[in-house]
Amino acid sequence: MTLSHVKIVGSGLIGTSIGLALAAKNVGVTMHDVDLRAQGLADDLIKSPSTAPVGLVIFATPIGALKTVLDGEFEAHPKAVFIDISSIKYKVKVDVLSSKLPPSRFLPTHPMAGREVGGAESARADLFVGRPWITDSAGADSDVVEMAAYLIELLGGHRIELDSLEHDRAVALVSHLPQLVSSLLAKQLTGGEASWLDLAGAGLRDTTRIAASDSTLWREIIAANSQALTPLLKALQSDLGNLIESIEDEKSVADLITAGQEGRARIPGKHGGKAREYTYLPIVIEDKPGQLAALFEECATASVNVEDLAIEHSPGQFTGLITLALSESDAMKLSEHLKNSGWSVHSPKN
Amino acid sequence: MTLSHVKIVGSGLIGTSIGLALAAKNVGVTMHDVDLRAQGLADDLIKSPSTAPVGLVIFATPIGALKTVLDGEFEAHPKAVFIDISSIKYKVKVDVLSSKLPPSRFLPTHPMAGREVGGAESARADLFVGRPWITDSAGADSDVVEMAAYLIELLGGHRIELDSLEHDRAVALVSHLPQLVSSLLAKQLTGGEASWLDLAGAGLRDTTRIAASDSTLWREIIAANSQALTPLLKALQSDLGNLIESIEDEKSVADLITAGQEGRARIPGKHGGKAREYTYLPIVIEDKPGQLAALFEECATASVNVEDLAIEHSPGQFTGLITLALSESDAMKLSEHLKNSGWSVHSPKN
Repeated sequence: MTLSHVKIVGSGLIGTSIGLALAAKNVGVTMHDVDLRAQGLADDLIKSPSTAPVGLVIFATPIGALKTVLDGEFEAHPKAVFIDISSIKYKVKVDVLSSKLPPSRFLPTHPMAGREVGGAESARADLFVGRPWITDSAGADSDVVEMAAYLIELLGGHRIELDSLEHDRAVALVSHLPQLVSSLLAKQLTGGEASWLDLAGAGLRDTTRIAASDSTLWREIIAANSQALTPLLKALQSDLGNLIESIEDEKSVADLITAGQEGRARIPGKHGGKAREYTYLPIVIEDKPGQLAALFEECATASVNVEDLAIEHSPGQFTGLITLALSESDAMKLSEHLKNSGWSVHSPKN
Repeated sequence: MTLSHVKIVGSGLIGTSIGLALAAKNVGVTMHDVDLRAQGLADDLIKSPSTAPVGLVIFATPIGALKTVLDGEFEAHPKAVFIDISSIKYKVKVDVLSSKLPPSRFLPTHPMAGREVGGAESARADLFVGRPWITDSAGADSDVVEMAAYLIELLGGHRIELDSLEHDRAVALVSHLPQLVSSLLAKQLTGGEASWLDLAGAGLRDTTRIAASDSTLWREIIAANSQALTPLLKALQSDLGNLIESIEDEKSVADLITAGQEGRARIPGKHGGKAREYTYLPIVIEDKPGQLAALFEECATASVNVEDLAIEHSPGQFTGLITLALSESDAMKLSEHLKNSGWSVHSPKN
């Protein structure tokens, strides 16, 4: 199996991430987007041109836009294989059935990877590594299934075959319900004193992280999957009603917390998250211009490669905690180097 | 101010973390717990004995156990200063008023730090670094307030003065409500096929992380703060009811997601002020040592203040995208400067 030239229709987070990953594997990539700013950024990030015929077209558009591009792409590349990456699968199958694209040349797929930030600027080549990537092969030609399987393997995904309707019920539970609950919780923060938010800790940040997600994307997903979502939301409503009724009863509250522990424990450890093994080095810096430059100069002097970083500021405080993610050996090297130069380095964490 | 010998009543996560942090600063520590296993582990971790008189007693017991230890500790150490670290403050004040401990010798405090795992084995000396630590000084003697302030500073916390009743309302919103919502969501995972959970991603993991918290601890906190929590839960119930009613209406769903974004954005990123409106400048850089240093040197040369930043790249890839958060004017200035120096700067986003 070879993949010489892939066209990706849609330069958002998923499309651009696939493009980055393919380019890193020396596969030719053509990005396309109706938004020229997004396409320009994706082109600049990816740079893997090819003059070979397009063998695979990946639809990475919003759900609602899919049916507007199916016919045109099929007419432009009649011999290609077609897949999509939408979060909802049954509706996509219906869209394809009412298009010129023969259903046997199309495979519905769904990489279970994403971020709360969207757009080409948030793309990363390793977005799919170790993540489930669902396919619904019923009715697709075997060469179509093989090419999609090859793509998923190339990108480090973990292929799971699942019927489209069951897929939609599963993602309602593990993806769409958490999104709505996070948004519902975050909406409550619009009440309350602004100073109260200064007390926010990791719990609030984690539970509301995905509430920052794009409303245009999600309104489509939620509305398209309302049938699977409604019974889940009603079960939640019932549990919330019970909690309000019995909030002063310690046993009832404990039962809810315990049930939550049980649900949480059902999330398996494997296939989750990306297989990165960074060491995290916390450094307390003065929060003023020039400090970051000075720190990164030290990184350059020590010849270490910073893989990722995070800055945490405390309310009203003029120092900041920066956490650098490095390989274990680079973390040791940098820690030693920074300590010798008088920086406030804390013990690394894995 | 000196702190020669501190007694910590309660060898859980917070008590043991305080003990570890004090021992690291060469302060004598005596741990006490009715659970001998917990006390043994804490003693083994801390090992910082002292024969000096106990100058400070820290109550780090569960909320319900506090009133059973107040009298005994006061009688044993009548000249000491007393503080607690409970998650609820008003109930603690009431407990102290009905004890032998003079209220002026006691300061209610609350370090806003914790983990979803509890117990002495999860303790960390750096648990409080950069975290808010609330005090309610009304009615306490000045030497009591001074000693608590000294302790908080020694442990790296950031002291915030707040009335106990207002504290309880604030933590209901930013801590207790997220806990209950996370538990309610995680409880829904007890339904559904086990194989569906294989599809779980970072969104589900993050939103349910704190659902793994201890039910014994939380049932006390929730019941003790039910008055502040009930109106919040009812507002959530109303929003959930509206969502169920209008789930097929894309505009209603988009409004909810947007309100969630607004709530999420109120969580401050820096200095406890309102979340600022940054301008985000995407820059494509070569992914090799020295590039970040060179970029921040340019920032220093252009005299701009980088408020936050994110790196998006993946190991094995030779370009990376760095996004700098700056004020709008700094973003314009830096964009111009970098373009003139040959950097690959893309259009800023707000």
